Order: sequence, then C-alpha cells, then structure tokens
Amino acid sequence: MFEAAELGHKIDKATYRRRLPKLREALLSAQSELRELGTFPVVILVSGVDGAGKGETVNLLNEWMDPRAIHTHAFNQRTNDELQRPPMYRFWRKLPPKGSIGILFGSWYTDPIVDRVMRRSTTEMLDQSIGEINRFEKMLIDEGALLIKLWFHLSKQKQEKRLRELEEDPGTRWRVTKHDWKAFAKYDRFRRWSERTLRQTSTGEAPWVIIEGADPEYRSITAGETLLHALRKRLGQRKPKTSLPRATPLAPPIDGIRVLDRLDLTLQVSKTTYAKRLEHLQGKLATLFRAKALRDRTILVVFEGNDAAGKGGSIRRVTQALDARWYHVVPIAAPTEEERAQPYLWRFYRQLPHRGRMTLFDRSWYGRVLVERVEGLCSEADWMRAYGEINDFEDQLVRSGAIITKLWLAISKEEQEKRFEQRQKIAYKRFKITAEDWRNRKKWNAYAAAVDDMVERTSTDLAPWTLIEANDKYHARLKVLETLIAAIERRS
Amino acid sequence: MFEAAELGHKIDKATYRRRLPKLREALLSAQSELRELGTFPVVILVSGVDGAGKGETVNLLNEWMDPRAIHTHAFNQRTNDELQRPPMYRFWRKLPPKGSIGILFGSWYTDPIVDRVMRRSTTEMLDQSIGEINRFEKMLIDEGALLIKLWFHLSKQKQEKRLRELEEDPGTRWRVTKHDWKAFAKYDRFRRWSERTLRQTSTGEAPWVIIEGADPEYRSITAGETLLHALRKRLGQRKPKTSLPRATPLAPPIDGIRVLDRLDLTLQVSKTTYAKRLEHLQGKLATLFRAKALRDRTILVVFEGNDAAGKGGSIRRVTQALDARWYHVVPIAAPTEEERAQPYLWRFYRQLPHRGRMTLFDRSWYGRVLVERVEGLCSEADWMRAYGEINDFEDQLVRSGAIITKLWLAISKEEQEKRFEQRQKIAYKRFKITAEDWRNRKKWNAYAAAVDDMVERTSTDLAPWTLIEANDKYHARLKVLETLIAAIERRS
Repeated sequence: MFEAAELGHKIDKATYRRRLPKLREALLSAQSELRELGTFPVVILVSGVDGAGKGETVNLLNEWMDPRAIHTHAFNQRTNDELQRPPMYRFWRKLPPKGSIGILFGSWYTDPIVDRVMRRSTTEMLDQSIGEINRFEKMLIDEGALLIKLWFHLSKQKQEKRLRELEEDPGTRWRVTKHDWKAFAKYDRFRRWSERTLRQTSTGEAPWVIIEGADPEYRSITAGETLLHALRKRLGQRKPKTSLPRATPLAPPIDGIRVLDRLDLTLQVSKTTYAKRLEHLQGKLATLFRAKALRDRTILVVFEGNDAAGKGGSIRRVTQALDARWYHVVPIAAPTEEERAQPYLWRFYRQLPHRGRMTLFDRSWYGRVLVERVEGLCSEADWMRAYGEINDFEDQLVRSGAIITKLWLAISKEEQEKRFEQRQKIAYKRFKITAEDWRNRKKWNAYAAAVDDMVERTSTDLAPWTLIEANDKYHARLKVLETLIAAIERRS
Repeated sequence: MFEAAELGHKIDKATYRRRLPKLREALLSAQSELRELGTFPVVILVSGVDGAGKGETVNLLNEWMDPRAIHTHAFNQRTNDELQRPPMYRFWRKLPPKGSIGILFGSWYTDPIVDRVMRRSTTEMLDQSIGEINRFEKMLIDEGALLIKLWFHLSKQKQEKRLRELEEDPGTRWRVTKHDWKAFAKYDRFRRWSERTLRQTSTGEAPWVIIEGADPEYRSITAGETLLHALRKRLGQRKPKTSLPRATPLAPPIDGIRVLDRLDLTLQVSKTTYAKRLEHLQGKLATLFRAKALRDRTILVVFEGNDAAGKGGSIRRVTQALDARWYHVVPIAAPTEEERAQPYLWRFYRQLPHRGRMTLFDRSWYGRVLVERVEGLCSEADWMRAYGEINDFEDQLVRSGAIITKLWLAISKEEQEKRFEQRQKIAYKRFKITAEDWRNRKKWNAYAAAVDDMVERTSTDLAPWTLIEANDKYHARLKVLETLIAAIERRS
C-alpha cells in the first residue's frame, strides 16, 4: 500500500508559493460554510511514520484556517484520568462538534499498531481491535461525520537519511535520541502491521489517504487539498440522503406475549418486612463499598421504567446507604445544544465515573431505543443501529472494569393511572405530572414493544437487564437493592 | 439476548390454522413480485440451538412458497472440493441470484461459534471471525441483498425436556444419540459464545431475529411473518436510494507523479539473451511445479495492463512451460447475465483453482477499479468499497494457501499507437483492435490515475503488484516469468 508514497513525490517552492494562496482562501471559505451550515463535524486523523511531517502539517492546517473552529488534539500516553475509563473514552471526549473540524494527532490506530509491533499483542488481538475500530468509525459516519484519514509515510531509506542528517547538524543533533534509532530498527515490523491495519480499515466511506512525507511542500499542499476536496464534496450535498433502510423490520411476537407480561405485578412486601430488609440490604451495600476489591471497579446503575414507576424513590433507597462522595446521580433529560452537536452516545461518555465510584442514571442511553423510537424523534435506521452501538459501549465499559446493572421498573397501566391521579392531588408532587405524561399513556403498547426489543437485543451476559415488579414500591425497592448487591458480589 | 425467547411463546392450533392461509398467500405474492422485479436477492440465515425447529421451519418455508425460486442449502462438513478453497468459498457459491431467495441452513456463523465452544479457538480468534463476517455482510448489503438472520432458540430446560421426551418414546428413542447429550453438556458455553457473536453481528442493516423454538406453530408463523414483513418493506422501496457517498474523494498527486511514471520503459533484452533466459526460466518453472511443496498450494496470476501491452504473449510464455493439466487460463470479459445477478466478486470465486493448480487471469477482479471506474460503469461508492473487498478476498485466498502474483504490463502511449497501427495492417491481428480500443486511448490519464490508486490501495505484503515495463516484449516476458518464479520460491 505504500508504494505510491515512495516515488519521491515533490513540488518546487515556486509552485508551492503559487498554489498556497488559492488553497488557503478556498479552505477558509469551505470552513466558514461548514460552520454556518453546522450539520456535520469533520474528523481528521493524522497518523503515520515518525518524521514524515505529521506535526508540521497539523500546524500548517491550523495556520491556514480559522483556528477558532479547529480543535487539535494530540494523544500520547493515557492520563491518569483516562486510564480509569475505557480506551476509547479519550477519543470520544475530543470529538469535534457539528460545524467544526477536529484534528486528531495520534488516534485510535496508534495503540493497536504499536502494541503489535512491540509484540505486546497477537495478530488476533490486532484484528480484534480492527473490528472495534471499524464499528466505531461506522458509527461516526452513520452519525454524519466526515472522516478523513491521513497517513504520512516515509520509505526506510528516507527515514534513515533524515535521522542521519539531523545527527550531522550540530544544531539539530539533540533531536535524535536513542529511542529514535530503536524505533527505526523496527521499521519493517511497523510497516508490515500498519499495512495490515490500513488495509482492513480502508473502507469505501472512509478510505485512508497515504501521503509521502519527505518533501514539505508536497505533503502540505496534498494534505490541504485532500481536506478541501472532501469538504467541498460533502458541502455540495446540502441535503444528504439518508441511507437505504435495509433492516429486517422488528415485528412484534405473534402470540402477543411480551417480556413484561411475564412479570407478577401482584408481588408485595409488608411494611415491617420492608423496614427490616431495607436496613439489612443498605448495610450490606455500604459494607461492600468499603471493600478493597471495589476500588478498581466502576459501578453503573441504569434506571429505566414506566412514568411514575418509582425510579426516584428506588434511587434514594440506594444512595441513602452510601457516602455522598461515592456516587453521582445523573438525570437524563433532553440533550443540550452541545450534546446535540455530537454523536448520540457522547453525552454518556462524559458521565463515566472514576474507579471506585458509582453513577446512577435516572434514564439513560436507552432513550434512543425507547422514547426516541416511540415518539419518532429519530429515524428507524438510527434506533436500529443503536442496539449494536449500545452493546459495544457497554462491552467497552465492562472490559475496563465496570459493573453494569440495568433495571426496568414496571407497573401496570392501572397502577400508573392511580399514581398520576394521586400526584395531581398532592401539591408538591404536581410538578411531576404533565400533559405529556398523559399523552405517553396512549402509546403504552408501543412502549411495551420497545421494551421487549430492548431487553432482547441488549440484555447480555456482561450487562443483563433485570425487570422489577414495581406495583408495590416496597417490593421494588428491595429488589433493586438485592439486584445491585448481587451484581457487585458476583463481579468483585 | 435470549430472554425474550424463553418466555414460553406459543399460539394454539386454531390460531395457526386461521393465520396460515393468509400468510402463505401473502408470501407467494411477495415472492412473485421479487422475481418479477429481479433487482435484489434475499438471503435467509437459519441458525440456532439444536432441536429448536430449524429444519422443520426450512421445510415449511419451502412448502409455503414457490420452491422454484428458493434455493435451500445445508452446510455441514466441508467437502473435499471445498476444503481446497477459502472457508467462505462454499457460501459464495451458494448465494442466491437477484430475484430469488436463498435459505442457508448452517452458515458462516457455525464454525466460529462451535470452534470457540469446543475450545479449538480463542476469544480473539472468534472476534477476528466476527470482524470478517461483519465485512462480508456489509458487502452483501452494499450489493443490494436483503439479509434476514433467524436464530432459533430453546432454553436449557426446554432442550433437556425435549431430549428426555424423545428418549422415553420407543418410536423416537433412536434419534437421541450420545452426541446429543454431549452437545447438551456444553449448552452454557454454546449460549455464551452465541450471545457474544450475535451481539457483535446484530447491525442496524441486518439485525438478528431470535425466535423461541419450542412451539412449532409459534416458530413457523413467526419465521414466515418475519420474512414477509422484510420482503414487503423492501419491495415497497422500488427505487432504493443509493447511500450517501461520504468518501474522501481520491485526488491525484499534486505533483503529477504516478507510479507508472517511474518505470523505465526503455529497458530491453536482445533476441539471443531472450532465447537463452526464456529456456532457463521455463525449465525452472516446470521443475518448481513438480515439487511436492506446491501440491498444497494454489497459484493465481493476475494479468492486467494497457491494451496491446502483450498480456496474451506473456501468458503463453508461462503456459508453454507447463503441462496443460496444471493450469487454466481465464479470460475476463463483460459479466454474463448469471454473473450480473450476483455480488461483484462472485464470478471470481467460481474460478478458484484446486490445490496444486494454477489459474492465469487475463484481466481480473480489478476490472471494477479500472475499466468500470473509468468508464463510469459503476458508481463511485461501488468502486471505492471494492478496494477493501478485493483485499479481503485476496487475504482469504492467501490464508488458505494461495500464492497470488499480480502483474501490470505497462507500455507508453506512443508504443501503444504503434502496436494498434501494426495490428490493423496484419490481417490475422486485425480482430484484436476495435474502435473501442482507440476510444480508450482518450482516457489514458484517467486509466493512469486508476492504476495509481489500485496499486496504492491493493498492493499488499500478501499480494503485491509488480509493474512490468513492456515496451520491449522480450524484457516483459522474462520479467513476468522471473516475478512468478520468485513468488513461488518465496512462499513454497
């Protein structure tokens, strides 16, 4: 794959000086159109061989365009903060919002390739990473991002020559370290594993563009024009057609039996039993949290359920047991403007807890396959792909040490009506009930179908759903605590 | 993922008898519309737990619909013929053509899951297979296929009960073998690794549909209606919009330097040197073919190049050296009607040689990124994704023992003109030159750009491109033989 980038591509300085002003002007105008439009982000990956001019090119791109709408991020060692989250966390956090350009200098490709070169991983592990990258980039593209992948290349001879030249010049000798020669000694392995990775990730939607890095003028103009062409092409498609929805539609079970139908909503617990059990369970939870084993874990608890199913009360029975420094409750409402400018899961990556901490989500990333699906707030293609994206997200979390408990609090339609009416009577609870809540009831069956599909498609060994019979609040609260405790005990 | 399929779904026989006639009628009518339209194939995968009614359902689907346009294939052990080709070969060969339905009973999912269950593979290897499956299914969908993935499930209790019942009945006792109980002992492992696989392959475009298999009436109607809904939905989109072309356009190198420009087309060999070297090289090739090491290999040689670059003559210099039983020359022209009804690479899978044999392709699967691209015979999205698909194809071949040599025979524009004119003068060569050949010359630069991108994107360690300077026929023929011999020596 690197042959074409070993031809000795170059342009002379006069050509460079002649082409540059036009390129800059065109880039600036495309960039401002991008910003005004504000409908998609541009993600530029800058990777490749050391010394092939990656840093210089990134600096130039920043110089040529309006730096206020470019976000450049370099990724080196993971910070302490990042080490406590899944590997992809730091990339998610740095994704550019719609209308702007993000330059990622060192990206999700670096670690998989370098680990294989250094023999810290096997070929199978590399391919596993490649599979994850392909799914992640597909998500970015499905979310509308323009993804441009630039690889800067130098032939072995050229890289060696460059190191020697730097060494011979007393002014630059300090720039060449032992580490550089050590890395150079691995040139062939690096080339080989890079090739495999590029080959398997060069898709029709986001192909790699390989740029020979030896001549500064050539590589800069090439990078700039690649960006310009891609931007112009995309800006020309003002109204991007949505892709063909080729999915098998999810049909409801023909016998009408839903996961939720199998719940025994008559289950109940007496007040005295409740008080005794609650105290016992809360004590147990507090003890668990003090255990050493939990310090390397993060705990995520997802509360979903019918309106008025008692999520808030259940959450309080969990937090009552704990020191406030140990947990964080995140209520999920409509996304903010900042969040709408990012891929769907972005707002949840923001909320991932440190090790040893717990986050309780009052509603969650399942909104897309519940309310957004039922209310038609996103297209069918969007919520259909969300199941897989959510599974990937939770898979990453579990592999980086998270314990995920997902709870659906279920009440009957009659019970909900009773609670709605009660809320309207009690002044301080009245704010909790709106016209929308009554409207939602009309879609009871649509929600039941969405819950069915959600449980079927996202209840996994790693992160199972637990359905909580919640007509009786005492029973529900105890079962929430029991489920959480069992999940922690099983995985710590 | 299997919870919803353990609820004890069932319908009574009366309901079944009531629903069936309507379903059959609707399926038949959808099927005939599919055939008349003839624009896309339907691929149905039938997988899942043993005893969950997979076979029965497949039989029913065949009974309900017009069997002339359904192709059912069961995949068990690979046949001797199939063992000599890449693992995906047998599935490619059985893909249904456009307008028809293919039911694949046991599919590309079986081996990866079973190998992991039996501990013949690691988790990383399973994930590697999953990555390949995802790329393969993406190709199918990009080619327009409607892909329906049905998984028939039974809970552990239900499976055990079923085995016991069969055993207790003297009439069916023979059906339960030791093997069945052995397989049952692995139920939990099977469930676990199936879940992982389904989770990572359930995409927005081709989600898994999990069907509880205990009740025959329920599972049959569910399978039938799933198929019906999917068919109807797709048939409703008469003119499928092509998906958004989000690719970075491939821009030509700004300095105008092409891979082909670096060739020294003045290279030549004298007639006497040629005669001597030719004899030597042909002898060497013949000897190599007799070697034992080659018996487990297949050899593929791709000849591409400018019109009149001398592909035919070079091919003859290779075959002259060999016994006619050892090789097969495949000229690639426009696809036949049968081939047009299949994914692009299908026609090449047909031509894969047995072990110990060689196939010489006079033009090849690179047509899509050469002539089809330049002449606008396919969309940009189609040829852009072809690079990755071709790489995957060759990767599979190499992993199953193939040695791939890819040759581009390059002549100059002037040399081509000379040859065209000569051909027109010589009667028996006149048939070789058409008006189209002259037209193609006008697109010389477009072809040069296509060759550049092709070499850059598909020349890999596993299957590199070799550019042959072919203005001098003697030089070209010798270099072709040398390249082929070196490739065989390196890999045998």
